Amino acid sequence: MSHRIVNLTVRDVRFPTSDEHHGSDAMHTDPDYSTAYVVLEADSGLKGFGITFTLGRGTDIVVCAVEALAKLVVGKSLQEIVGDFRGFYRLLTSDGQMRWLGPEKGVIHLATAAVLNAVWDLWARAEGKPLWKLLVDMDPKQIVSCIDFRYITDALTEEEALDILVKAKEGKQLREEQMLKQGYPAYTTSCAWLGYSDEKLRELCTEALKNGWTKFKVKVGADLEDDIRRCRLIRQMIGPENTLMIDANQRWDVAEAISWVTRLAEFKPLWIEEPTCPDDILGHAAIAKALAPHGIGVATGEQCHNRVMFKQLLQASALQFVQIDSCRVGSVNENLAVMLMAHKFQVPVCPHAGGVGLCELVQHLILYDYICISASLSSRMCEYVDHLHEHFTSPVVIGDAHYMPPTDPGYSCEMLESSVQLYQYPGGDVWKHKSKK
Amino acid sequence: MSHRIVNLTVRDVRFPTSDEHHGSDAMHTDPDYSTAYVVLEADSGLKGFGITFTLGRGTDIVVCAVEALAKLVVGKSLQEIVGDFRGFYRLLTSDGQMRWLGPEKGVIHLATAAVLNAVWDLWARAEGKPLWKLLVDMDPKQIVSCIDFRYITDALTEEEALDILVKAKEGKQLREEQMLKQGYPAYTTSCAWLGYSDEKLRELCTEALKNGWTKFKVKVGADLEDDIRRCRLIRQMIGPENTLMIDANQRWDVAEAISWVTRLAEFKPLWIEEPTCPDDILGHAAIAKALAPHGIGVATGEQCHNRVMFKQLLQASALQFVQIDSCRVGSVNENLAVMLMAHKFQVPVCPHAGGVGLCELVQHLILYDYICISASLSSRMCEYVDHLHEHFTSPVVIGDAHYMPPTDPGYSCEMLESSVQLYQYPGGDVWKHKSKK
Repeated sequence: MSHRIVNLTVRDVRFPTSDEHHGSDAMHTDPDYSTAYVVLEADSGLKGFGITFTLGRGTDIVVCAVEALAKLVVGKSLQEIVGDFRGFYRLLTSDGQMRWLGPEKGVIHLATAAVLNAVWDLWARAEGKPLWKLLVDMDPKQIVSCIDFRYITDALTEEEALDILVKAKEGKQLREEQMLKQGYPAYTTSCAWLGYSDEKLRELCTEALKNGWTKFKVKVGADLEDDIRRCRLIRQMIGPENTLMIDANQRWDVAEAISWVTRLAEFKPLWIEEPTCPDDILGHAAIAKALAPHGIGVATGEQCHNRVMFKQLLQASALQFVQIDSCRVGSVNENLAVMLMAHKFQVPVCPHAGGVGLCELVQHLILYDYICISASLSSRMCEYVDHLHEHFTSPVVIGDAHYMPPTDPGYSCEMLESSVQLYQYPGGDVWKHKSKK
Repeated sequence: MSHRIVNLTVRDVRFPTSDEHHGSDAMHTDPDYSTAYVVLEADSGLKGFGITFTLGRGTDIVVCAVEALAKLVVGKSLQEIVGDFRGFYRLLTSDGQMRWLGPEKGVIHLATAAVLNAVWDLWARAEGKPLWKLLVDMDPKQIVSCIDFRYITDALTEEEALDILVKAKEGKQLREEQMLKQGYPAYTTSCAWLGYSDEKLRELCTEALKNGWTKFKVKVGADLEDDIRRCRLIRQMIGPENTLMIDANQRWDVAEAISWVTRLAEFKPLWIEEPTCPDDILGHAAIAKALAPHGIGVATGEQCHNRVMFKQLLQASALQFVQIDSCRVGSVNENLAVMLMAHKFQVPVCPHAGGVGLCELVQHLILYDYICISASLSSRMCEYVDHLHEHFTSPVVIGDAHYMPPTDPGYSCEMLESSVQLYQYPGGDVWKHKSKK
């Protein structure tokens, strides 16, 4: 059956999360978790849903960018697109006029992610499979045909990528069954946002421990004495056996990152996340080198803007945990490149999630990583934040602190139409009743 | 006199340069040189004009981003802004919600450049000076107070920056007089766009030599045999004494860049510009290392998206020529940081220009670099392209292949209102009479 895309709509949907300090960190004190929400309609009646994630103000700019890309999508059939997915990817990312606005970074790349996420959703629905299963069932050759290797061949060639995938076929079936039974290990960031009081932190932590969580992330970076108090508190709550990670959200310069985190070393964090500017590859390398003697790794990626930046972070040994994001880079296509490079450099992938919809999306990618690329769970886990899942038609399912593989066809980012209308900015009821932010 | 900004307008202005292959290169085959054109109005009646440069499609997205930033500008007085210019810079670049769209890169940063360029123009007009002279007359302390040192203190601290400026006070007066008399050396890119025929290239080159040009840049990267023919032709035309540069506009992967440029080494290019992805610091470093034995340097910067990327290019010895751009990074403020870092690393600044308005703007920056920072003309020159100057109220003045310092107050990017109206997209007469692109 043919599916020709005949329409693309995009809406600005914002949730007023800043009211409760959800998601607050050292650099983003008042985020309103938001999405540019894309719906593709095919002449067959099938729809594809895609999002990119934003923090509120500026979502309208991403919407504007999606509208500019729409011209390159509408009129094409799904078969045409996926038959030459690398070519289609490059059509979107390398338009001779629009690439000046990036290339492959910032607003234009966030918009690309939203559009391509919708295309992948459409494809998975057309095949009647959840996205992760569509990927798992694809031939290695077809997988690599989706990847644009431009600018990364000095780190990973198409032949090497193919070789990795062919080798990982061994045991694939068993790993798929294991995932269906046990799910993929998760950690929680819900307990310790920077805006939360100690009392709330204590309460959420107790609850999380009761629910089987063993890995916890704390936001740091605004005030050192505060961080010491909060890290001590949470380490006392979770005990020495459980895992603690800390996240500074880009707050520091290089030297400051090293001295600050050294002061927190006594709490034995597994990693420091985003210690400095996401663009600073050499800075991350310096920080990683300085913190290695303390047994603290560097994690980054949620604002790493494309595969070329990930390539260099890996080449420079600048990170010990690769945090892919489902909406920052060019959708599944570019994340496949990143996961394959991470495997070549033997660095574990621990996805960024949370926000709105990021958990729903990225679970598919990390399932594929385990089943078909890394074949390992060592030092691996996927972020989880317990917010806003109620707005999705197929919300994530967490069982005993594990992501349970989605079973509905698609990429899990279709939102309830009632939610979209209620939270649409600025016309939805939720926003009409608030003073404009 | 007070100048409170009471209005900001932004318009999408596009010139159909692709009709004549002007500006065509290996990655941008059909650019329509365009601007998001910002006008600030103060309650005093004074106006400030600013632009960012784009290639046509997508300019509307930048316009949308400027409109989002407008809220942070309108209502503020010029005195408030320049009294804490670092704070104002950070207000625009680090908004807790909008920084997710960058941070400090892509569409949102291009928009920041347009707005800040207009603020600097307003300031220079308020002082009755051309921008370069406003800068030259500023106290070193005031200059550094305009710079956001976040994320670059591992390469350049505020104290080091101040020290550079204080030391360069010696001979400043003489250098200013020298510039007023002789102008700043320029090179031309007008002769050898990729879309031009050999005949046109020969013709333009003859004309340029007659007009005193001694430094020439050729676009390469689409076809090796073609490049060899074109480089041979232009080297024959200009002789062994004149300078040849080549520019690949990001066409190659790392290994390909090295092998391709090695094949062109016989034509003795001074530099290879943008050999690969602008984000690839380590890639540029590898290319620079491989080409050093051939006496060919690496030049890049027109798509280097912020000071953190320039910092790393310098730290990694990845470039031998720093090509600042007046519209890619955060206006004068961020370019000051880049020029000061380049001086610390002893790498010459050779600005990117051309497009529309880039020559008008960047001449001010390079004059400041010579008079107050580098105090050297060795291996230094500013790009010049002979297009679209007729649309500006104070177009560049070239004398004997040198930029002659502007004398009109401001930052030289006010456009003729008749041109803005004629070329406004999509409503201007020029576009109404064309089929939409």
